[in-house]
Parts: sequence; structure tokens; C-alpha cells
Amino acid sequence: MTTTTPDATGAPAGPTAAHGRLDEAEVRRLDRAHVFHSWSAQATIDPMPVAGAEGSWFWDHSGRRYLDFSSQLVNVNIGYQHPKLVAAIQEQAGRLLTVSPAFAEESRSRAAAMIAERAPGALNKVFFTNGGAEAVENAVRMARLHTGRHKVMAAYRSYHGATAGAIALTGDPRRWASEPGAAGVVRYWGPYLYRSAFHATTEQEECERALQHLRDLVMVEGAQTIAAILLESVVGTNGILVPPDGYLAGVRQICDEFGIVMVADEVMAGFGRCGEWFAVDHWDVEPDLITFAKGVNSGYVPLGGVLISDEIAATFDHRPFPGGLTYSGHPLACASAVASIEVFEEEGILAHARHLGDDVIGPGLRELAQRHSSVGEVRGLGVFWAVELVRDRTTREPLVPYNATGADAAPMNAVVGACKERGLWPFAHFNRIHVVPPCTTSDEEVRHGLAILDEALLVADEQAASR
Amino acid sequence: MTTTTPDATGAPAGPTAAHGRLDEAEVRRLDRAHVFHSWSAQATIDPMPVAGAEGSWFWDHSGRRYLDFSSQLVNVNIGYQHPKLVAAIQEQAGRLLTVSPAFAEESRSRAAAMIAERAPGALNKVFFTNGGAEAVENAVRMARLHTGRHKVMAAYRSYHGATAGAIALTGDPRRWASEPGAAGVVRYWGPYLYRSAFHATTEQEECERALQHLRDLVMVEGAQTIAAILLESVVGTNGILVPPDGYLAGVRQICDEFGIVMVADEVMAGFGRCGEWFAVDHWDVEPDLITFAKGVNSGYVPLGGVLISDEIAATFDHRPFPGGLTYSGHPLACASAVASIEVFEEEGILAHARHLGDDVIGPGLRELAQRHSSVGEVRGLGVFWAVELVRDRTTREPLVPYNATGADAAPMNAVVGACKERGLWPFAHFNRIHVVPPCTTSDEEVRHGLAILDEALLVADEQAASR
Ligand SMILES: Cc1ncc(COP(=O)(O)O)c(C=O)c1O
Ligand SMILES: Cc1ncc(COP(=O)(O)O)c(C=O)c1O
Repeated sequence: MTTTTPDATGAPAGPTAAHGRLDEAEVRRLDRAHVFHSWSAQATIDPMPVAGAEGSWFWDHSGRRYLDFSSQLVNVNIGYQHPKLVAAIQEQAGRLLTVSPAFAEESRSRAAAMIAERAPGALNKVFFTNGGAEAVENAVRMARLHTGRHKVMAAYRSYHGATAGAIALTGDPRRWASEPGAAGVVRYWGPYLYRSAFHATTEQEECERALQHLRDLVMVEGAQTIAAILLESVVGTNGILVPPDGYLAGVRQICDEFGIVMVADEVMAGFGRCGEWFAVDHWDVEPDLITFAKGVNSGYVPLGGVLISDEIAATFDHRPFPGGLTYSGHPLACASAVASIEVFEEEGILAHARHLGDDVIGPGLRELAQRHSSVGEVRGLGVFWAVELVRDRTTREPLVPYNATGADAAPMNAVVGACKERGLWPFAHFNRIHVVPPCTTSDEEVRHGLAILDEALLVADEQAASR
Repeated sequence: MTTTTPDATGAPAGPTAAHGRLDEAEVRRLDRAHVFHSWSAQATIDPMPVAGAEGSWFWDHSGRRYLDFSSQLVNVNIGYQHPKLVAAIQEQAGRLLTVSPAFAEESRSRAAAMIAERAPGALNKVFFTNGGAEAVENAVRMARLHTGRHKVMAAYRSYHGATAGAIALTGDPRRWASEPGAAGVVRYWGPYLYRSAFHATTEQEECERALQHLRDLVMVEGAQTIAAILLESVVGTNGILVPPDGYLAGVRQICDEFGIVMVADEVMAGFGRCGEWFAVDHWDVEPDLITFAKGVNSGYVPLGGVLISDEIAATFDHRPFPGGLTYSGHPLACASAVASIEVFEEEGILAHARHLGDDVIGPGLRELAQRHSSVGEVRGLGVFWAVELVRDRTTREPLVPYNATGADAAPMNAVVGACKERGLWPFAHFNRIHVVPPCTTSDEEVRHGLAILDEALLVADEQAASR
């Protein structure tokens, strides 16, 4: 089947002419022979060569194009190959590519200042890393040293990265093979009304009970032993679980009461994904530490970091912070973050992301939910949405079991395949399809993608019915 | 005092004209207000703004230039702003900046193939990361799953990075504040004849005793519980400890005998630093896993990785590898690695690095050692050298205590200051000055730097004498 990309969506023309470059077969051959891929059984995969990308589209070497409803790993918030970012990267590359963390450098200063300026309240300093996992590692390090306590509370249904510290704090199956992990991780359940751990029936009840659960855990673990409560402001890969109003404020209050550091992991939820600079802005809550990566520069150059409150930063005014990495504050990465933040403002991207959520994706998905029996729930905000697929709307049995593999995962693979055949690249996790296109995707492009999803959901409906 | 940079050294002219950019005061002000620096007490530092760099030189906003004997954090192996790398980065930036690890991509395929081709024997696959710590984390993960064992042997006097797994394996004081670390780390002493843990008096004796020590530890720990022996092929930050001939082969043999994975951390020692692609090539030893970063692309874009033997890769042919990161195999980083490897070959950089070690730095430092009473030992190979400073050549008492801070560190600070005043940027650690310029530094530039070091060592002699 060929891709169906009407010109109306403004899709770019496909790959540019190659000059002395590898053809697709060679890219594939070398990949199979030499590239070891993450999270995969190497002999069972056949990674598709990507030849180019622009805006919300990418294409293979034959010019077959895909509308990207995944933003790769939910990081290309600004779309592919934004000309202003490309130019900023090229300019900085010609000027100064690398300088160690011990120095000051213009793009580093500027990026830190611009990020801090857009952060809530008293979060005024930035520790830069290369990605999300390192950001989480260092946030936890700061919290432990700031409080002099060791334990960290982390949620089931969460992902925080794959280094030893981050994977130990992760609440999804990706951590299992790395266990036993670190001591001192206390796991809790976050709010998720559709599959409530607390037998709640309303958002408000879910909120109150989830906070009570957290409070009970703090009590039995001993508040004075707990350094931090770590959470994704809006849980990403594990379900786009939007907290009920009042939940984040409630966590903030528990942290205040017991001198616990509140760490918001916004590696996925930040920088426009939720229609705000930071997802916590949606509820006007100020954490002590915010981790970020992905959307800060759309992953054009590896970059992540920790936003630090004045109070925690002061802990390290006269006492050395015992953490670092060779590329902290990499000038090229920082230059792309500066340009990206400018583009966000020049192009009104936050407002567009909110508009997409409120006026296009939200209504569109709710409409699909009405027509497709396999859709158990749709939820989200901004350009951060999940479609949860079930076998049965009453029992809410997931279309595939938790962490399904092999034949168990077939129903979801069929849905994903139906999207790809039609030129839509979805983000799938467990029994969910996430609708997470770049924040810059046009209304027409989103509608085009939702129309494909509509067709793919027929496959889901069939799969749900057949057993 | 002004810098003394004779034109003969070919130093570039200084900063180019600014266009709408921040001045030095503003770079500094924003840095102090918003950038949180690694390994530092924030209120006690005053990071120097770097305005530009070229070849082996960098300069501040006033045009004051420094000959870089540090290669930043021993990563700028190819020198600053190499035009071919700049062009390759700009070209890839204009073509395709980011694509997730699940896809194949031309620069990713090419970089993996080129790195594997230059690696010893059966190390044919590459798992890419953003930096060194993540490389070590994933190498250890592979070793554990491949062997089904948990313990890892790691050396005192080593550095492996600052994420939870890597810092727990680190054998220097930077780990202290992050302790208690992970369970299952067994520490051993490596060879270091100048301060032998084994009371040895010759290199051969040191080698034999260090291997016997390792073998004894394997016995009492239980070989069947040990997943990996981790070592820096040549220990970097902790002293440029060049293993005696036979040591690495001896470790290889112990690993073979007991089914233990040999992991060579070449984040600092690889890619030209020791005059070879990989430091192990100097002794013709083939580890099972090699971690790399830094020199692979001189840090122009954050990149690191693990080179994987066929045998270990096969473990993950039909069993998923449980690790990953958003930017694994980042196209921009891979494109810079491809260009860097090409430049290494086009310009004969490995041979030049060996020449610098054999004919310029080695003889030059030995000559300085004869004239300066504070020099206890000089050692190294390629462009990887240490000058160990002592109070007394007989007792070998270090010029400053292990991990000295504050007033205790003053003698070393004086030496470092004397270098900087004269336009030389040294790499200092504990009681050592490391001579680690870019591999591309000219003979004349190295001699110029050694002449400055000669003057600075007068300060060291005075400091050693005065107490
Ligand atoms: C919420 C969250 N935290 C941390 C991470 C880890 O980031 P990285 O893959 O850059 O290490 C991710 C990655 O998906 C994430 O979604
Ligand atoms: C031998 C070695 N391993 C690992 C690392 C950690 O690398 P990174 O700072 O990129 O995480 C370093 C950094 O200096 C190193 O020298």
C-alpha cells in the first residue's frame, strides 16, 4: 500500500539528492552488522532507514513519507529541521563547538538564563546534562545531599531513564532486568482514575485517596528518612496520566510539611508538550527541582538538565556539588536550546499546542471514542494524548496484557501496522496509542492523522471482538 | 601579566567580531546567576568565559589566548574547530538532526561500521550513548546479563563517570558523597610502581604481584559471582598509570579462565590519546567490551558508546537488551565521529600522537624531571602524560595530600597559576600536572608549552622546599 499524503497537508517533497552517500541497502546492511539497538533483541528487528525529515514528516529512502504522531520519542516538539534551529546549530558549530563545564560560555549562559526565566518561581539555576536519565540522577543526588536523607519515593507506572539510579526509580517493566536495583526506593501509586488503585469513582476522590496513600506511606516509611518525592508531572510513556486538579498541589503540601524535596520529571511533559513551558504551570505548582530534556531543543543535539530552586542551590554554595559530566552545558546543545525557546515565542507554539489539544486532538479523539468500541478512554492535554484500547468497555480489560510480548502483543501490532501502512507513525505502548505529534503540527495535519487513526481503530475493534 | 604566544607557534588571531552577541560581563553575569557547575561549590568559583578556540588554542573575550595542555577534559583530541568536522556537522544539521534509536540512519550506520572496523578482533557492534558514564553503565549491564553474575571488580584510582552505576564503580574521592553506592562492587589495586601497593621494585614484579592480587580476590570473592573486571586500559584522571607490559594480557587470561567479562574503559585513553585507536592496541589485547566517548569525536557533539564482542552481542540476539536512551546513535553526533575518524587517517594523527610522545613530550618531560627537584616521576605514552610532583624524591611524599582542598591544595594552585599566567592551560589533579594536549598539536607548540611548564616547575620546586 502507498502512503496517502494529500498535498493539502503541506508535506515536504521527500529526500533531497544524495551526494556520495550510502544507499538504503548499505545503510541497512551496516546497521544490521554494527549498530546495537536499545531495548531490542537484535536478531529480531529490522530498523527502517530514515532518509530525511521536515516539519511533522519523515521519509525513507524511497520517498515514502510518514506523518509523525510520535515526535520520535516524544522529543521533536518543534518539528524536524526547523530552519532557525538548523541555522543556530550551524552558526555555533562554526564558532565554538565544545568547552568544558568549568568555563563560562555565551550560549551556555544564555540558555540557562532563558530556561530559568521561563521556570516557575524560585527555580533559577540550571545544571545541564546530556539527557533525561542523567538529569534524574543528579536531581536525586541534590535532594539527598540537601536533606541529608536517603530514600526516594517513586511511582509505579513511570519512566525515568536507564542509568542505574534512574532505572531503579522507574516504575515500569524496563527496570526488571536491572534488578535488584538501588536500596531506598519506596514505590507509590499515582492517580489514574480509569484503573484506580484506590477504588475511587470520581477525579476528586481519586485525588484525595492518592494523596492519602502518599501521606500514609510517608508516615510508615518515616518522613525524616525521605529525601524526595519524584513524579512525572504528567506521566508520559506509562499512559499519559494527567493528574486530577489538586494532586500536584497536594504533593507540594506533603513535601512542605515534611521537608521532602519535590522533584518533577518533565523530561517528556515539559517545553510545550502540555501547552505550557512546564507541565506544572498548568496547575500553578512550584516543585523544588524540575528535570528536563527532549523538548528543550527537540533533541536536535543531546541535552537535558535540572532546574534548581534557590534553596537547594544554596546548599551547594560553599559545599561542592559532587556530580558532573564531560559535556555539561555543551555549547552546541545550548545554542540549539536558545534558538528553540526563541522559536517557541516567535511562533506562539505554546498557544498552538493548547489549541491543538482543546480544539483538534481532544474533540477528535472523543469523537473516535464514541464510534470505536475498542476505545476505553481518551485523555490528555496539549499535544500529549493517550487512546487506551480495551477488549471490553465494562470490564476495561486491556486489549493486550501488561507488558505483552510475542503473540500476546499481536492485536496492538495490528493497529500499529494499520497506521504505518497508511503513512502515519504512531507511538504505541502496552494497550495504548499515544497521540503525540510535534507541537507545531498544523490543524490539517492532525486531522489527517486522526482520519488514519480512525481507520486503524477499526482493526482494534475487530481485534477486541475476536477471541 | 600578558600571554607570551610567539607567532612561531601559529596561534590563531583571537576572537572574531561579535554580531549582536553578549559581551564578557554579561556572559559572566548570566553564568553566575543561572549556570550550576559540576563538582563545585557554586559561590566559590568564577568560571572564565571562553570566547573562541582553534587548533590547540582557546581565548577569552579580551583575546587573551591559552595553549591547551588539557584538551578541555582530555576530549579535544583533534583540536578545536577542525574545519572538516565543522563542515560535517553543518552538513548533517542541514540534512537530518535527529531520529530515534529505533531507526537506521546513514551516519549512525557509517559511524558504527567505522568504529567497529578499527576495534580489535571480534568487537563488531556498537551501542551508542551520549557520554562516558552511560557507556560504562551499559557495559556493566551487558556483562551482568551475559554472565548471569552480579559482582563487578573495579580499581582504586579510577574514574568511570557520575551516574549511580558509574560512580559506584569509580575509585576516586568523587564517589564518596554518593555513597553508600551499589552493592556488588569489589575493589582492587592496579599496577602503579611509583606507589606500589605490592612493595614491588620493578615493573615486572609490579605486574606479577598486581595480577596475583587480582587472582586472589577472584578466589576469595568466588569467580562464579563475578560478572566483569573493569579497568581503564591506561588510568587517566587518577594518574596516567600506564600498565606494565603483560598486565592487560594477564587480566585477559584471568577473565578467560573464569568466564569473566573484561571491560576496558577507554573513554579517555582511546581514539588517539595513546597513539592508537584503542589503548589496548598498544599491547595487542582484546577486551570483551570497550567503552569510549571523548576522543571519538573530540566532544564536538556529545557521544559515547560501547564496543561489543560478537559473543556478548549474541546474548542479545533473541533476548531484548534492557537498556536505552533517547539519543542513542544521534545522527549529528555520529556524523561528527565519521568525519573525525576520516581526519585521523587523512592527517596521520595516530602516528603524530606517537611521535609527540616518543620524540617531544617524553624526552622533554624527562629533561624537566632532571632539573626540577619537585618532579618525582614522569610517565605516559602518546599525548597522555603525567608529571608527579613531590615534596621529597626519597620519601615520595606528594606535593599536596590525596584529595587536598583549601590551604592544603595551595602548592598545586600556585603551579597551575604560574602556567595560566604564562598562557598555558594545564590539567591538574591532586599532586600531578597532566600533559594532555590535542593529538594534533605541533612539535613547536608542545615545546612552547613545555618551556612554560619549565618555568612553572620552579614554583613547584619552591613550594616543595618551603615547609
Ligand atoms: C519522564 C522521563 N524521564 C526520563 C527519561 C529518560 O531520558 P533519556 O532517554 O534522555 O535518558 C525519559 C525518556 O523517555 C522520560 O520520558
Ligand atoms: C575513563 C573515564 N570513564 C568515564 C568517564 C565519564 O565520562 P562522561 O563524563 O562523559 O560521563 C570519564 C570522564 O572523564 C573517564 O575519564
